[in-house]
Amino acid sequence: MSDLKLTSRAADFSEWYNTLVLRAELADYAPVRGCMIVRPYGWALWENIQQVLDKRFKETGHVNAQFPLLIPRSFIDKEKSHIEGFSPELAVVTHGGGQELEEPLVVRPTSETIIGYAYSKWIQSYRDLPLLINQWANAVRWEMRTKLFLRTLEFFWQEGHTAHATPEEAQEETLRMIEVYRDFAENEAAVPVIVGRKSETERFAGANETYAIEAMMGDGKALQSGTSHNLGQNFAKAFDIQYLDKNGVLQHCWTTSWGISTRFIGAIIMTHGDDQGLILPPRLAPHQVVIVPIFKTDDEKVRVLEFARAVKSELTASGVRAISDEREGSSPGFKFNDWEMRGVPLRVEIGPKDIEKGTVVLARRDKPGKEGKSFVPREGLAAAVSETLTAIQKALYERALNFRKANTADPKDYAEFKQAVEKGFAHSFWCGGGECEKRVKEDTKATLRCIPLEQTGETGKCIYCGSPAAEKAYFAKAY
Amino acid sequence: MSDLKLTSRAADFSEWYNTLVLRAELADYAPVRGCMIVRPYGWALWENIQQVLDKRFKETGHVNAQFPLLIPRSFIDKEKSHIEGFSPELAVVTHGGGQELEEPLVVRPTSETIIGYAYSKWIQSYRDLPLLINQWANAVRWEMRTKLFLRTLEFFWQEGHTAHATPEEAQEETLRMIEVYRDFAENEAAVPVIVGRKSETERFAGANETYAIEAMMGDGKALQSGTSHNLGQNFAKAFDIQYLDKNGVLQHCWTTSWGISTRFIGAIIMTHGDDQGLILPPRLAPHQVVIVPIFKTDDEKVRVLEFARAVKSELTASGVRAISDEREGSSPGFKFNDWEMRGVPLRVEIGPKDIEKGTVVLARRDKPGKEGKSFVPREGLAAAVSETLTAIQKALYERALNFRKANTADPKDYAEFKQAVEKGFAHSFWCGGGECEKRVKEDTKATLRCIPLEQTGETGKCIYCGSPAAEKAYFAKAY
Repeated sequence: MSDLKLTSRAADFSEWYNTLVLRAELADYAPVRGCMIVRPYGWALWENIQQVLDKRFKETGHVNAQFPLLIPRSFIDKEKSHIEGFSPELAVVTHGGGQELEEPLVVRPTSETIIGYAYSKWIQSYRDLPLLINQWANAVRWEMRTKLFLRTLEFFWQEGHTAHATPEEAQEETLRMIEVYRDFAENEAAVPVIVGRKSETERFAGANETYAIEAMMGDGKALQSGTSHNLGQNFAKAFDIQYLDKNGVLQHCWTTSWGISTRFIGAIIMTHGDDQGLILPPRLAPHQVVIVPIFKTDDEKVRVLEFARAVKSELTASGVRAISDEREGSSPGFKFNDWEMRGVPLRVEIGPKDIEKGTVVLARRDKPGKEGKSFVPREGLAAAVSETLTAIQKALYERALNFRKANTADPKDYAEFKQAVEKGFAHSFWCGGGECEKRVKEDTKATLRCIPLEQTGETGKCIYCGSPAAEKAYFAKAY
Repeated sequence: MSDLKLTSRAADFSEWYNTLVLRAELADYAPVRGCMIVRPYGWALWENIQQVLDKRFKETGHVNAQFPLLIPRSFIDKEKSHIEGFSPELAVVTHGGGQELEEPLVVRPTSETIIGYAYSKWIQSYRDLPLLINQWANAVRWEMRTKLFLRTLEFFWQEGHTAHATPEEAQEETLRMIEVYRDFAENEAAVPVIVGRKSETERFAGANETYAIEAMMGDGKALQSGTSHNLGQNFAKAFDIQYLDKNGVLQHCWTTSWGISTRFIGAIIMTHGDDQGLILPPRLAPHQVVIVPIFKTDDEKVRVLEFARAVKSELTASGVRAISDEREGSSPGFKFNDWEMRGVPLRVEIGPKDIEKGTVVLARRDKPGKEGKSFVPREGLAAAVSETLTAIQKALYERALNFRKANTADPKDYAEFKQAVEKGFAHSFWCGGGECEKRVKEDTKATLRCIPLEQTGETGKCIYCGSPAAEKAYFAKAY
């Protein structure tokens, strides 16, 4: 554990975040500005995220593949809005094998272009559709302001890329995948999200529509945590992705893309963490349970360790990810703090008296002090642990949802709106005008996060200009 | 399926390989010379390889992490033999975000340097050792002559990097991991391998010792299929990886690295494939069983499909990776050929008569024609399938081992040696001299593949110079 002291969230949320990422050994800075090393504890969390997402992708008919890292520079230029969006962010390979390359290559910032190239080769007929491929990969965008997990030059993600015969199918897919992300965020990460579509300004470069899940962080700011894009025929036309339909007519495909990245680890940290450190949702935590043996004499040590190992075996056998902290030379108090800081959801304390009484102590990470502690019989412990983990998962979600509700306002006028976005989300009517969106951003630094799919059907007046408005949107400062 | 015709192995082994990779849709060429797209079928095979290797890494105490893709150019220059080995192969990023970079970055050709940088930050004391980390990642080496899977500019692999307190522990780790690779190759991929150490010429750039597993391909050539390096203190000194020992004295660590890449897919193809296409070892095959329903009338179709689906469910429930090929408009004969070409180890044929008789036909991919066919009762099918898959796995290994034995010679003189390496491996005494190794290569194009760990203890005379020799080595032409 590093010696850095963890600031309180209230004192400096950003500093708290940076210190916590380092102290919990989730990630570290790389020698290259803005790049990160994901350390074993952080990568184990990402592997759990990968596993639950990958299962959902496969259940919805997708397969994995791997497309090249290096893309000819000219590919980026083939889709007009894509160039504008990504040109400023490219990392460019100009030399290979000691020679200057004839055409520079870019390190993929995203793979629509290279996958468009492949799809145009692979897709011939309607029988080849839909084509539903995902890849787990790294990507590089030359960002100016970086922060571990949230925005790094290199990041790790999955990007799904699909091709369809009709616009309806492409739209269904786009919405299916944003729903997969919502389900993942809420039911695996215990992160409540708002599902909505982006305004034109905030759309992916090359998309007709972008849908996003937006989460509220512990400081009231929004974090875009996953996106799904309906790309229309933009990339199909740029890369000649065509198929012969049932009538023998050549048609352009309709494509989508969707992604979730290591940024989501930032969402988990900033949704659940507290002044003691991380709190990881049990379903994704690398270690769900840490057992801390407590003893003074050598005789006690023998008995306690034996007991602790038996408990660990039983928990592991019942499918719980449990570890026992047998580190020599560290006090139980040190271990409590250390694992609290690393966000292990549940601690099992075992001392000589517990063994005599046939009980152990369970200490919930989400409830500090006595409130979270309970004595539980050794008999039937695995079931009790399993129930407690489920309860923690639920409690984390509810706490985050209540926090979001408490920090979301429905301001009656622009003055109230400005106050609302200082604290959290403003849920307000918007006329749909880019000009109002821009002015709001200039005034308040809040951006239009999304126009939620859930609308009441009521109409109202734009919070900025007062014109008639058919839909409400969420505005907030964002990461 | 592509329309390319598969050449016979005897006619042109290289052409057979290239065509097969494309036809079986394992991989495709990328727009950038020497890069590849790994298609879903190929990636599913790689995911299975990843899974069984990852399990072994975790069982031997390793954890996964992720280190950056981009490495400062100056890092490569810190270890002397590393520069010489990798400088000619680097892909260099000179521009980022529209600006020329102050220091060029290289796309990792391997990660000893960047991980050395990280380890020097993370390791302080003997308590931090051993540090046992692996990463699954891509890497880029600017190769001149490329071939799908075997040698590509970008490749996919795992690279383990460990740091230890003593040279003994580092050596143990190096040997432990080459043994993990042997176990994986032989027991999962059914690829028999020779485990040995490399000569100085063939060592990894920066290693004190390199160990490798070498397999014989269907044309008698050798393929280095996995390597494990004892790096001594070379990288520890170059990157200041130091720890305080129990006596409070600062010491340099001893490090190792080891890797297996997508090249291993090439080993599987060229070990087991035949003139009909791929033959995948059941333990790694994406689909272990393909069910082909056979029918003529609509009535038969209903009954056969229902039956086939029930079989599929039962096989899936018993842990077998089974698919049912219900493609419309393709004949059973076409499907037989298609799945044979893709190397599915076992086919289940189901027709109306089979249903009446309560049997199905099993057709083994490794035994062509009638020899591989058997009628099996529907009752207890899952157990029969499971046994047959085990038998196929074993038969593939034995066939490959026999092939290697038949094509390995113990030549009595250099004339015989030259004939031997035209056909397969020569297992010969070698004096240990680099000069003899070089001359052999010039004469025959055969290289010293490895000095096997298994030696009889006998001594003899160097096959080239006739000087006394304490060890035998394998020589072969190699990929």
